[in-house]
Amino acid sequence: MTRIPVVENIMSANDQIAAENRARLDAAGVYALNVMASPGAGKTALIEETVKRLAGRLRLGVIEGDLATSLDAERTEAAGAVSVQINTGGNCHLEGWMVRDALARLPLADLDLVIVENVGNLVCPSGWALGTHRRVLVASVPEGDDKPYKYPTMYHGVDTLVINKIDLLPYVTFDMERFRRGVETLNPGLTTFALSCRTGDGLDAWVTWLAEQVAVYRAERAEAAR
Amino acid sequence: MTRIPVVENIMSANDQIAAENRARLDAAGVYALNVMASPGAGKTALIEETVKRLAGRLRLGVIEGDLATSLDAERTEAAGAVSVQINTGGNCHLEGWMVRDALARLPLADLDLVIVENVGNLVCPSGWALGTHRRVLVASVPEGDDKPYKYPTMYHGVDTLVINKIDLLPYVTFDMERFRRGVETLNPGLTTFALSCRTGDGLDAWVTWLAEQVAVYRAERAEAAR
Repeated sequence: MTRIPVVENIMSANDQIAAENRARLDAAGVYALNVMASPGAGKTALIEETVKRLAGRLRLGVIEGDLATSLDAERTEAAGAVSVQINTGGNCHLEGWMVRDALARLPLADLDLVIVENVGNLVCPSGWALGTHRRVLVASVPEGDDKPYKYPTMYHGVDTLVINKIDLLPYVTFDMERFRRGVETLNPGLTTFALSCRTGDGLDAWVTWLAEQVAVYRAERAEAAR
Repeated sequence: MTRIPVVENIMSANDQIAAENRARLDAAGVYALNVMASPGAGKTALIEETVKRLAGRLRLGVIEGDLATSLDAERTEAAGAVSVQINTGGNCHLEGWMVRDALARLPLADLDLVIVENVGNLVCPSGWALGTHRRVLVASVPEGDDKPYKYPTMYHGVDTLVINKIDLLPYVTFDMERFRRGVETLNPGLTTFALSCRTGDGLDAWVTWLAEQVAVYRAERAEAAR
């Protein structure tokens, strides 16, 4: 009895749906992020602050992935983004088909940027493509400086890193140099932002950079369409 | 093509191995905990402090589960516990066979208590029995007061809750009443300890309770053996 092929089939089906999601986003000219993190690192807080700061500049949609409740979608909706909540039941990560169904519920023609918040989990989400353009990992200071070493697959597989809760640095043991060395080994040159969603420190640099990514994406799409 | 039975077969095989692990622990008269949490909630710090405080009273073994590195086993070994590191590769949770192999490397006849530290993950470990006597969840204040609502399977399935990092309460937004209401709904009457591994606050109550659990277990084993 061979079980591996079943897993391979499921994964390639997911990759295909992810490619379809990407094509759908590109057809609408919408840039998309897949935001991943441990539970409680501050994904939702980061999205809330991003939505507020981009109000009037970019039109945002948010897809929230959680085992249960619509608490996060209520928060991002209140912040000003059209929001869709996915409840995975017991599933520990988002998959392509869940995002496909959520995209169908968003007014893509009226949006510039979609932020997908994955289930809080430093392991499983890294293995599943969703069709987004960029994978963003939110780390947080109270989690400790050893996390890159202990969760290498996640740290290796992302395109951008946000280090949240830097306001807690005086109150916890966190060696930023040790943390950054671990990141650099796994993912050299990774674009990194250190910030605090609580105090607002560092958020402007993140939001400015994100708006630039959307502008670059649009310019590339326009160039490709000529 | 039916896939569910494959999952069922795997799970029941795990349950059988877990039962064998339990029998092995009971034959040696060793009490065992399965400690679960988000990455960075402080599982290893709690185990370190527990090992130090029980030195001379109970003989401890520790089984550390991580995707990669032996950082945690080095910490608990330094604290004074015989320690075995399991590296799961990419696996997001411990399974019965991993603990079986680790138990074979511990001198059970010379131990009173084995603490198993699961992979940092608030979702997947809850579905896999390891053969331990008690499942302990470590929550931490900076994760936020919404976690019971968002990870109900984990909060529902444990026997004991430790709320760590209470020293950070002045610096973060955490409504203890909201948190406790969520826990009470999912797991009424759950034995709970609030503490800080950093300041030592609340650790004595936890350690005293844990030593009592070992004593009660031993008395029950002795009674059963008569």
